[in-house]
Amino acid sequence: MKNGTNGNSKIQTNGNGHNAKEEFLPKSKKIYVQGKLFSDIKVPLREIELSPTRLHDGSLEENKPVKVYDTSGYWGDEEVNCDPKEGLPAIRLKWIKDRADVEEYEGRTIKPIDNGFDSEEDVRRNTNGNKQKLEYYPGLRRKPLKAKSGSAVTQYYYAKKGIITPEMEYIAIRENLGRERAMDYALGNDLSRNELNWQHKGESFGANLPAYITPEFVRDEVARGRAIIPANINHPESEPMIIGRNFLVKINANIGNSAISSSIDEEVEKMRWATKWGTDTVMDLSTGKNIHETREWIIRNSPVPIGTVPIYQALEKVNGKAEELTWELYRDTLIEQAEQGVDYFTIHAGVLLRYIHLTANRSCGIVSRGGSIMAKWCLAHHKESFLYTNFKEICEIMRAYDVSFSLGDGLRPGAIADANDRAQFAELETLGELTNIAWANDCQVMIEGPGHVPMHLIKENMDKQLEVCKEAPFYTLGPLTTDIAPGYDHITSAIGAAMIGWFGCAMLCYVTPKEHLGLPNKKDVKDGVITYKLAAHAADLAKGHPGAQVRDNMLSKARFEFRWEDQFNLSLDPETAREFHDETLPAEGAKLAHFCSMCGPHFCSMKITEDVRKYAAGLGVSEIEALEKGMEEKSKEFVESGAEVYLK
Amino acid sequence: MKNGTNGNSKIQTNGNGHNAKEEFLPKSKKIYVQGKLFSDIKVPLREIELSPTRLHDGSLEENKPVKVYDTSGYWGDEEVNCDPKEGLPAIRLKWIKDRADVEEYEGRTIKPIDNGFDSEEDVRRNTNGNKQKLEYYPGLRRKPLKAKSGSAVTQYYYAKKGIITPEMEYIAIRENLGRERAMDYALGNDLSRNELNWQHKGESFGANLPAYITPEFVRDEVARGRAIIPANINHPESEPMIIGRNFLVKINANIGNSAISSSIDEEVEKMRWATKWGTDTVMDLSTGKNIHETREWIIRNSPVPIGTVPIYQALEKVNGKAEELTWELYRDTLIEQAEQGVDYFTIHAGVLLRYIHLTANRSCGIVSRGGSIMAKWCLAHHKESFLYTNFKEICEIMRAYDVSFSLGDGLRPGAIADANDRAQFAELETLGELTNIAWANDCQVMIEGPGHVPMHLIKENMDKQLEVCKEAPFYTLGPLTTDIAPGYDHITSAIGAAMIGWFGCAMLCYVTPKEHLGLPNKKDVKDGVITYKLAAHAADLAKGHPGAQVRDNMLSKARFEFRWEDQFNLSLDPETAREFHDETLPAEGAKLAHFCSMCGPHFCSMKITEDVRKYAAGLGVSEIEALEKGMEEKSKEFVESGAEVYLK
Repeated sequence: MKNGTNGNSKIQTNGNGHNAKEEFLPKSKKIYVQGKLFSDIKVPLREIELSPTRLHDGSLEENKPVKVYDTSGYWGDEEVNCDPKEGLPAIRLKWIKDRADVEEYEGRTIKPIDNGFDSEEDVRRNTNGNKQKLEYYPGLRRKPLKAKSGSAVTQYYYAKKGIITPEMEYIAIRENLGRERAMDYALGNDLSRNELNWQHKGESFGANLPAYITPEFVRDEVARGRAIIPANINHPESEPMIIGRNFLVKINANIGNSAISSSIDEEVEKMRWATKWGTDTVMDLSTGKNIHETREWIIRNSPVPIGTVPIYQALEKVNGKAEELTWELYRDTLIEQAEQGVDYFTIHAGVLLRYIHLTANRSCGIVSRGGSIMAKWCLAHHKESFLYTNFKEICEIMRAYDVSFSLGDGLRPGAIADANDRAQFAELETLGELTNIAWANDCQVMIEGPGHVPMHLIKENMDKQLEVCKEAPFYTLGPLTTDIAPGYDHITSAIGAAMIGWFGCAMLCYVTPKEHLGLPNKKDVKDGVITYKLAAHAADLAKGHPGAQVRDNMLSKARFEFRWEDQFNLSLDPETAREFHDETLPAEGAKLAHFCSMCGPHFCSMKITEDVRKYAAGLGVSEIEALEKGMEEKSKEFVESGAEVYLK
Repeated sequence: MKNGTNGNSKIQTNGNGHNAKEEFLPKSKKIYVQGKLFSDIKVPLREIELSPTRLHDGSLEENKPVKVYDTSGYWGDEEVNCDPKEGLPAIRLKWIKDRADVEEYEGRTIKPIDNGFDSEEDVRRNTNGNKQKLEYYPGLRRKPLKAKSGSAVTQYYYAKKGIITPEMEYIAIRENLGRERAMDYALGNDLSRNELNWQHKGESFGANLPAYITPEFVRDEVARGRAIIPANINHPESEPMIIGRNFLVKINANIGNSAISSSIDEEVEKMRWATKWGTDTVMDLSTGKNIHETREWIIRNSPVPIGTVPIYQALEKVNGKAEELTWELYRDTLIEQAEQGVDYFTIHAGVLLRYIHLTANRSCGIVSRGGSIMAKWCLAHHKESFLYTNFKEICEIMRAYDVSFSLGDGLRPGAIADANDRAQFAELETLGELTNIAWANDCQVMIEGPGHVPMHLIKENMDKQLEVCKEAPFYTLGPLTTDIAPGYDHITSAIGAAMIGWFGCAMLCYVTPKEHLGLPNKKDVKDGVITYKLAAHAADLAKGHPGAQVRDNMLSKARFEFRWEDQFNLSLDPETAREFHDETLPAEGAKLAHFCSMCGPHFCSMKITEDVRKYAAGLGVSEIEALEKGMEEKSKEFVESGAEVYLK
């Protein structure tokens, strides 16, 4: 990365890129808030500039810019030029090294099989310009880090020791967005104790949302296991974020090539695209060729934590034959990915041999890929899953790099008919046991959840997970609330996602319109991310997240005042909002007009309301009281006579 | 209408039509179920043909066709040729006349002002080929009907008298779809009493969903005011349907031209398009020119009930000047529309003078068009609303034609910030009073609801409405659960719609992606309808509507068995599902393949599950028990040792 003086040197797009116009959101700029405990912390926010309100007397009233959470990293800063071949700056590297508990080492040698090739010769045969060409990542010149022998380097470990890390302060600043006076924290002003007394009108389902977030609150939540900070020491490019139900609801976007389609370039581009629109983490679910190199390009350029399902790559290494998987091969794959910097691993260690037959009579059997691979292995060997029997050794790897567990729900339901069945909840019990073991080994843990669940069975999922997994964060896929709308499963699942987010789910894995039908393209990724951002935000509102409503209120105000540009710019997707408006009223003048295409110039309820307001402002209090009293009496007479005449 | 022998004579499309390919859904055919009490009842259903399942031994197992509720009318029957200029057949006319309580009369003379013109000369000036050209509807050769003096002709009146109408039996057959053995009713078989004992696992929120629907159940629900059958005696073309919380959740699609854009042709086409995709009612919200004729074309061709907001047309008649509205003008407009056959009127009679100042400090004031018009009128005259003071006379009109009330929520919130406030609930109380008066006058009533409501405040809306309006059906717009996503408000609102449908809302008014931004085009109408169909269906599942899950189960089974064509054809939108699939795997052969593009040929969880199933089927029961016992003990040891080693 270079801090650019040459504004013309735009991001390289590797052939599938977006141009400058669509790169940055309109009227937005990146601002950075400095840390208080750690002065080298620079937390990025996006500030949306608003136009003033024109008052009735013609004078102008300022509308303060709105600050929003920003996940786009330096890619989203017009002042900075980034090059995918060099990767993002390693903002956390100094913090990691300052803790003096890690050491550099040579690391594992990358083998042809890591990218799905039998030999170097095989790689050469496949690098002749076809889509699956292997392009080694040129940019990383660091050696991998791991914990010094015997030490744990996880945020959970530090939190339990009472240590506030720079990552925790970074998160505290980030999560305070929209909270009244919350930014004062960053400005060094003390807040009185009673400003912590935030009260929500609605049901909070046990969530504890303070009026503002302090680094100590972050530490405490992590130490309780109620939140995780996915932050592999080998992914120092990532901007710290937190997943827990007392924080903003997060979303994840899945990308990844497959045997059928897509290239490294496309996947890197999808990652940047997904973070531009607001995804909080990205999972690289690549299968097929070039898995290792695709991941390297993604991680080096990703400002958000990256998750993977390591069994996918392990399976590629045995040519798709699940029964040939071994613990040694899997272990080697974990280390390979930990050294690259993967921030969380989905591990389906709860698929036990004794649960497998519970799925035999299901409508859709086992739909989790990881779950079905492990089920096949268990049955082929008639032995317990090697993920389960070697779980302690897995913990040792996770704690040495601070890779967080995402305990996979390999037996999740794949159809409405299979929701909340014995197989699903049996596995959840085991995930609860494994959570305890992971914590005992200083590891961070979240729990994956379903899937396909009708609305009336969603809350049971959340309640059981909180109980069984002792409040470890829940991370669900949707859930889809009906199966009859393939092509619209971003919506069938957004309904379930918003609800479970309200009930306490910490992160929502997106579903794109292509789910069940095909591989998502860029448009699908955007549709999925925006849909899940709005679902997560609806959940934040319902949970009563302090400050979440600021953006809604500012957008509503802009709408009411016919500030069209501000309405577009405050929305999750300014481009689409503007495009939809312009389809009916394309002239620039229409965006200044005090009416819109829905009703036309003579017939606008907002305009009439403005008149009503002016009129009402002229009424005295006594006049209103007289009005209420007189009218109420008349109304009583009216109702009585109405009922009298006709009720016989 | 002609029953066609010539299959080539396709529907006339008025220049904006769809072709034969998109006219009919794939592998679907219309079937008709005859009534038992009334032999001339022919209830249309859509039957989706499925391909057989290939079993492990290579043999084929039949999958019975799935019957689904169908709203497309004769337009959706390949065997029938309809002509928009002639309109649909008047299937209810005989039933209406057989009741011997109506009489033909000359009816009101259509005036130029009904279409927004000052004079006949003004009409002529405006018929020269421009978009707003007035084309009088050629097809209706009937005179209007109204109740004989003193009689009521509402379904509510008949229901209270204990009369089962053909409309009620029609609905009973229609609503039984998917219920096990429910079609037996239509076949004349008696069902034993205990088959009525339907039990739902989830929360039903007071709904009472019987195992199957009888005509008597329909009558009883209507008589209790818990359900309405919008069925104007002058819209005999409509296929009877019911709105009530003990029935399938219904949806409404709004169409209508405005001063800015669109023609009669386009609006008729939108109506047919919306009913093709499943809307249960259509509201014609036209403003601007040609309101009367647009409505005539729509009603004559609509198989579903049509709703309007008569104050919109009344306002056009006074050139948009709310203060010039009079009771006489409004009354004349009601009769005009009742004679045409509008099935329900939105009437904002709850906007009282004494409530108006309650909106002055709102974030978005009054956003209902009807509400703001009435507020302006009340303030201008400093008098109580003429809708309220003349409510009894309105009832007399409604009962003479069986127009149902849709009591409008003129003070509904237009922003998250305004949800559940005093203005909103004050109006609701008045709507409760008016409900009683309407019932006392033999009228059918439903109540309109918000709007913009965060998730945690939705249930309060439903609970209050049921209490205050004594279980009259609720009909809500969304509600939108956040304001930050213009361009995606079909989704922000589908979340709220699905939830309130579960809680007991009887009909959901769709929101299109263009809401707040522009006028919906055909694509937006379809997006809105499909989104609301899936939300309504998710609500039916959550309510435990017996049989609703049949379609989910059949689709899941098709998915699991790689019957791609069946998966597309069972979905709400087969065209989009197929198109999304084909984007990645266009070859026809791929739709027979036992894998999909998401995972590729070697890596398919569904394929692995099939293997697991075969394997599990070979295990004996004793073997499974031994497995469970042995493994559970080992697991205990494992957990203990895991905790022991590391917990210090």
